[in-house]
Amino acid sequence: MSFSASIITLFPELFPGPLGASVLGRGLADGLWALHATQLRDFATDRHHTVDDTPSGGGAGMVLKADVLARAIDDVSPQGDPRPRILMSPRGKPLTQQRARQLALGPGAVIVCGRFEGVDQRVIDARALEEISIGDYVLAGGEVAAMVLLEAVVRLIPGVLGGADSHADESFENGQLEYPQFTRPQSFEGREIPPVLTSGDHGKIAKWRAEQSLALTKLRRPDLLAPPKP
Amino acid sequence: MSFSASIITLFPELFPGPLGASVLGRGLADGLWALHATQLRDFATDRHHTVDDTPSGGGAGMVLKADVLARAIDDVSPQGDPRPRILMSPRGKPLTQQRARQLALGPGAVIVCGRFEGVDQRVIDARALEEISIGDYVLAGGEVAAMVLLEAVVRLIPGVLGGADSHADESFENGQLEYPQFTRPQSFEGREIPPVLTSGDHGKIAKWRAEQSLALTKLRRPDLLAPPKP
Repeated sequence: MSFSASIITLFPELFPGPLGASVLGRGLADGLWALHATQLRDFATDRHHTVDDTPSGGGAGMVLKADVLARAIDDVSPQGDPRPRILMSPRGKPLTQQRARQLALGPGAVIVCGRFEGVDQRVIDARALEEISIGDYVLAGGEVAAMVLLEAVVRLIPGVLGGADSHADESFENGQLEYPQFTRPQSFEGREIPPVLTSGDHGKIAKWRAEQSLALTKLRRPDLLAPPKP
Repeated sequence: MSFSASIITLFPELFPGPLGASVLGRGLADGLWALHATQLRDFATDRHHTVDDTPSGGGAGMVLKADVLARAIDDVSPQGDPRPRILMSPRGKPLTQQRARQLALGPGAVIVCGRFEGVDQRVIDARALEEISIGDYVLAGGEVAAMVLLEAVVRLIPGVLGGADSHADESFENGQLEYPQFTRPQSFEGREIPPVLTSGDHGKIAKWRAEQSLALTKLRRPDLLAPPKP
């Protein structure tokens, strides 16, 4: 069974969107993964298709209703569905390359896109939603965040990218930032490709790249090199 | 002058995409911000419109050529353009809510979307591109990352969101994760709204929310509470 993603959103028309382009889009067309977007509003029961209400205790914005979202989740992901249920949320655990790899090995994901001020906590608890954040900033909704999650995951599904070894040297795959890249022309505005890269000495090239990776990581992301906290 | 975003990409047809929906899309239609996507391939000079070449020193994938990208940048952002030039890249400095706020106060941004294994380092240096990462994971390209950056920034432009105080209580705006939210119905599958929230006592509500924010941040993101590194 291939990787199957189900999205619950107020904007199903945004999918696949960018996920339909380039290699991910070819993988989708070839059946290497599947995507289905469901309109949350279809699970409202009142005449106005209400999906949100004002926050209990006051405050700005609107909160997605527990009952409506629970019905949508139960429809998209009935009991026995082995896929993790994820809520895109700035309150979540940060997405990592490791979590992306885990998800890519699994049966897929049910992804809820939040909007408004947030989601009623009771449906998060009752449906055991895994809150995932794509970074320390606030978006208008979870749709683009869901695209980020799926792009990070789907490109790791075997067959989606062309070359088998395209992953090995990338940023985060070895815990460091990637070394600088160069390509022709040899001279660009008076700047030359570093001679070591055109030396043909593969040992030297590997050593130079490792040094560059480490130096850049130290400079920009010393947190990646710090020993894990106890 | 309003906020103006220029995107350099191999997939200009993906824009505005999700940025054209909901409140961001209304802001775009109302002229609160502007968006223009440029096809990088138009700046190739050979018959095949080549934009990439193999990495100097070997390795998987392809590298965006310095000369082609430099021409595109110079066309989109001639000398005197006050906008920062950003390259979406997993090697970059992580995007923060603070950087999003800074960008929202400025004239806009020129955003280069990487593809392939990377971008020739010489054009990053020669055009002083600011490398920004949206998180510690690898994407297939910079397009969705550019959407994330713009969504985080544009929603902070005055007038784009409705309520003036919609930002104050959000995750990261005060350095902590947001407290849990609840809304009607009062009872959901036997789970009740916490009584404090329906007590009408605004002091108690504020205190409860602050405690909840702190507890959640301690649990999920102790790194946000740690004192800044020396």
